[in-house]
Amino acid sequence: MLFLVNIDVEMPAATPQEVKDDLRARENARAMELIKAGKLRRIWRIVGQTANYGIWEADTLEELHANLGSLPMYPYFKVEVTPLIQHPATEAWSKVNGAMPPF
Amino acid sequence: MLFLVNIDVEMPAATPQEVKDDLRARENARAMELIKAGKLRRIWRIVGQTANYGIWEADTLEELHANLGSLPMYPYFKVEVTPLIQHPATEAWSKVNGAMPPF
Amino acid sequence: MLFLVNIDVEMPAATPQEVKDDLRARENARAMELIKAGKLRRIWRIVGQTANYGIWEADTLEELHANLGSLPMYPYFKVEVTPLIQHPATEAWSKVNGAMPPF
Amino acid sequence: MLFLVNIDVEMPAATPQEVKDDLRARENARAMELIKAGKLRRIWRIVGQTANYGIWEADTLEELHANLGSLPMYPYFKVEVTPLIQHPATEAWSKVNGAMPPF
Amino acid sequence: MLFLVNIDVEMPAATPQEVKDDLRARENARAMELIKAGKLRRIWRIVGQTANYGIWEADTLEELHANLGSLPMYPYFKVEVTPLIQHPATEAWSKVNGAMPPF
Amino acid sequence: MLFLVNIDVEMPAATPQEVKDDLRARENARAMELIKAGKLRRIWRIVGQTANYGIWEADTLEELHANLGSLPMYPYFKVEVTPLIQHPATEAWSKVNGAMPPF
Amino acid sequence: MLFLVNIDVEMPAATPQEVKDDLRARENARAMELIKAGKLRRIWRIVGQTANYGIWEADTLEELHANLGSLPMYPYFKVEVTPLIQHPATEAWSKVNGAMPPF
Amino acid sequence: MLFLVNIDVEMPAATPQEVKDDLRARENARAMELIKAGKLRRIWRIVGQTANYGIWEADTLEELHANLGSLPMYPYFKVEVTPLIQHPATEAWSKVNGAMPPF
Amino acid sequence: MLFLVNIDVEMPAATPQEVKDDLRARENARAMELIKAGKLRRIWRIVGQTANYGIWEADTLEELHANLGSLPMYPYFKVEVTPLIQHPATEAWSKVNGAMPPF
Amino acid sequence: MLFLVNIDVEMPAATPQEVKDDLRARENARAMELIKAGKLRRIWRIVGQTANYGIWEADTLEELHANLGSLPMYPYFKVEVTPLIQHPATEAWSKVNGAMPPF
Repeated sequence: MLFLVNIDVEMPAATPQEVKDDLRARENARAMELIKAGKLRRIWRIVGQTANYGIWEADTLEELHANLGSLPMYPYFKVEVTPLIQHPATEAWSKVNGAMPPF
Repeated sequence: MLFLVNIDVEMPAATPQEVKDDLRARENARAMELIKAGKLRRIWRIVGQTANYGIWEADTLEELHANLGSLPMYPYFKVEVTPLIQHPATEAWSKVNGAMPPF
Repeated sequence: MLFLVNIDVEMPAATPQEVKDDLRARENARAMELIKAGKLRRIWRIVGQTANYGIWEADTLEELHANLGSLPMYPYFKVEVTPLIQHPATEAWSKVNGAMPPF
Repeated sequence: MLFLVNIDVEMPAATPQEVKDDLRARENARAMELIKAGKLRRIWRIVGQTANYGIWEADTLEELHANLGSLPMYPYFKVEVTPLIQHPATEAWSKVNGAMPPF
Repeated sequence: MLFLVNIDVEMPAATPQEVKDDLRARENARAMELIKAGKLRRIWRIVGQTANYGIWEADTLEELHANLGSLPMYPYFKVEVTPLIQHPATEAWSKVNGAMPPF
Repeated sequence: MLFLVNIDVEMPAATPQEVKDDLRARENARAMELIKAGKLRRIWRIVGQTANYGIWEADTLEELHANLGSLPMYPYFKVEVTPLIQHPATEAWSKVNGAMPPF
Repeated sequence: MLFLVNIDVEMPAATPQEVKDDLRARENARAMELIKAGKLRRIWRIVGQTANYGIWEADTLEELHANLGSLPMYPYFKVEVTPLIQHPATEAWSKVNGAMPPF
Repeated sequence: MLFLVNIDVEMPAATPQEVKDDLRARENARAMELIKAGKLRRIWRIVGQTANYGIWEADTLEELHANLGSLPMYPYFKVEVTPLIQHPATEAWSKVNGAMPPF
Repeated sequence: MLFLVNIDVEMPAATPQEVKDDLRARENARAMELIKAGKLRRIWRIVGQTANYGIWEADTLEELHANLGSLPMYPYFKVEVTPLIQHPATEAWSKVNGAMPPF
Repeated sequence: MLFLVNIDVEMPAATPQEVKDDLRARENARAMELIKAGKLRRIWRIVGQTANYGIWEADTLEELHANLGSLPMYPYFKVEVTPLIQHPATEAWSKVNGAMPPF
């Protein structure tokens, strides 16, 4: 199952730089584990914002929730989850060409 | 360049079925051309809605606009475009592991 | 998997009564099939509105989408899907008492 | 009477962990009492959020208000209450099959 | 039980005057029956709008829904229901003075 | 003149209990004075919220503003005022039956 | 009593020109009567919009409602009424200088 | 040029009374200067709110911005500016009657 | 004076192609006149939308309103006007370097 | 590529004046570098607000994000980016007259 997850990180501007740096280091380390595990499929930053859109894969909703909650910055997140399914255009493509082109 | 594009298709419920069918057939055909050209990277339907999220690639903003406008259902679209860049987690991943896992 | 689904039925006020009656009869018949199949767990009308909240169960997101789309009034729906997981209170209850009380 | 209650828990991120733990322990204990009393029929967490949807039963509006207010985290709640009634599909089901399937 | 009900009447501007007049006459007649039955306690028009706020009494949520739906203009309504309970100030008043002053 | 006044009380969760208690005691005392003076006709709490709806009477807009501002919790209020007039249904009732039934 | 009234005129773009012209002529004629009667104190068009802000005077809320409803374009209005009182700055001015400068 | 300016004053409830008093005194003094200079034509308080609507006159946009910024409470303002022009009804009035009636 | 003007063109999807073509031809012709007159300084299409942002210059608000209204598609516009002044960064630049770089 | 960027600067009112002054001085210095580099094409303040609209040029989305993030006040920004392309009116102008008039 795939989900589009929008995460807006609302950390107080006054947070000390070393706290931010530590959180970000641990955040990236955990994100890399989730990428390796095939759970965080893609993630992009929104231009001009401390927010991101990610494509998350999960076998269960519980797994998705646990993975989001495992990120060290989770207490500062505002999260919106949108369940996704295959689009007819992808289905039409796959019938003729097999898998979508890599990207 | 990558963009998250949210398309909400607002076709009147009273549209005759054959008009809808024709539009959808041409829509999928054009979408497949865009997939083949590497412009429509991924597209998913939102569960329960006649709306979708897509990851679009474009060399220029003009190209993105033209590609969106080339879809036969464009007159019925409500479109929102969000410019995306690489997320630090992806960057950290790439330094160690190279490309993101295929999906 | 469970989902809270909010469905707002936006049928034009001018729709002929016999069209409405036919749609509603078929809507209820299909809903009963979904209840029987264990897919539509509970559904309630919102007081004063032609809208409802339902608890839907699905093995996959594709199944949920297909079940929503199988309802005859679907073209008139405005749908919002919220993915749900077990609440800690339910978990605490289940450890001590087993299943939740029937309702 | 049944009500859909949406509770968004807005606790400051800086709240000490032991305060949070104590509140959550007492919150779950009180929730279990409400489940036992047949007042909190079902409750689910929204994926990715410190928010929940619950189906609450009450003989009076005063009782519903008192039960919500009896939760230790109530001062941090943002609450929305939606009054619910039986949906025609449930009514149609009950005429033929009796009670809804357990879940 | 008391409810604040906000009703916004959205009748197309092009509705023929005699249709409007007939609807309004039947609307007022039905409203008077509801007043007499003690179900519609008070109703006021919002200045400058074809909308109203009413204080509705009901023994059950089903009754409230049925009473709202019994109004001839119901198909043109956009309804919001807010459940109300006694305010502490009213409670304090009643302990000392008994019933609230008539109005 | 009658006004529907929606008051949302936004007191910080960290406010000391004795400060809250004192404010609430003085709030109720002042509210009772306004009830006695015929200025606060009815007031109800919204279920699940520290908010209320009230029907306020005033000879002038200045009087309404002064009465709202005289409440000790006013600095924590978010207020919305909706001017009300007699609804045609009430008018129709009064012509036949005189005053509205007491409530 | 003074009120700020925001009127958004939502006439269908397809309305025949002669219907629009007739409505506008009668609208202006009625507005002039209201100006003469001291009820419509000032009215301005919002730049780029078929909408206006007006300062309306009324002895009663009923009068304000009747005056708004007497405008021929009223069926196409979306109206918002904001009750106004004297601002402390005006009060301070008046104590020293008497009436506000004419404008 | 005329502008409708909506100012919402968002001062923290915890601001010491003497700070508020000093700010308000200087605010009113500066407002009176702006009235005298013909720049602040009219200003009203919104009933029940620490917010106001004013009609501001300015020869340039820079002047309007500077005048708003010259108010001592400006750091606590949330401001919305709406550019206004003469309404056709005023124009029609002026052709026949000259200036609008004083108010 | 400069204004940022956001124009959303809401033409019914069913508008005949020749009507659209004629409107667009006249729209562009009129826009070119406004560019030549120095009134429409810059205009850009929003990617994926039949909407635009423009920088408009005007000596008076009346002139801005008249120029917007002179566009043949004006009846289909939804317009928002934002008054602009020089930003401190531009001012700082101009002191040192004179005019902004051409673009 | 051009982008309309709306920046709302949300600095706490309590920020010490010398901190604000230092930030503003460095902000303007950096903005001037971006103007010189042809990246910040135009920037205007919104009347009455600590917010601005700017026309930003960038060869890549990464460049735009980096340039926005290089501003010293960036931690206090709320940013919205709108991708822009040439409007048909500009295109029509350019065919006949070449470049747009300088401004």
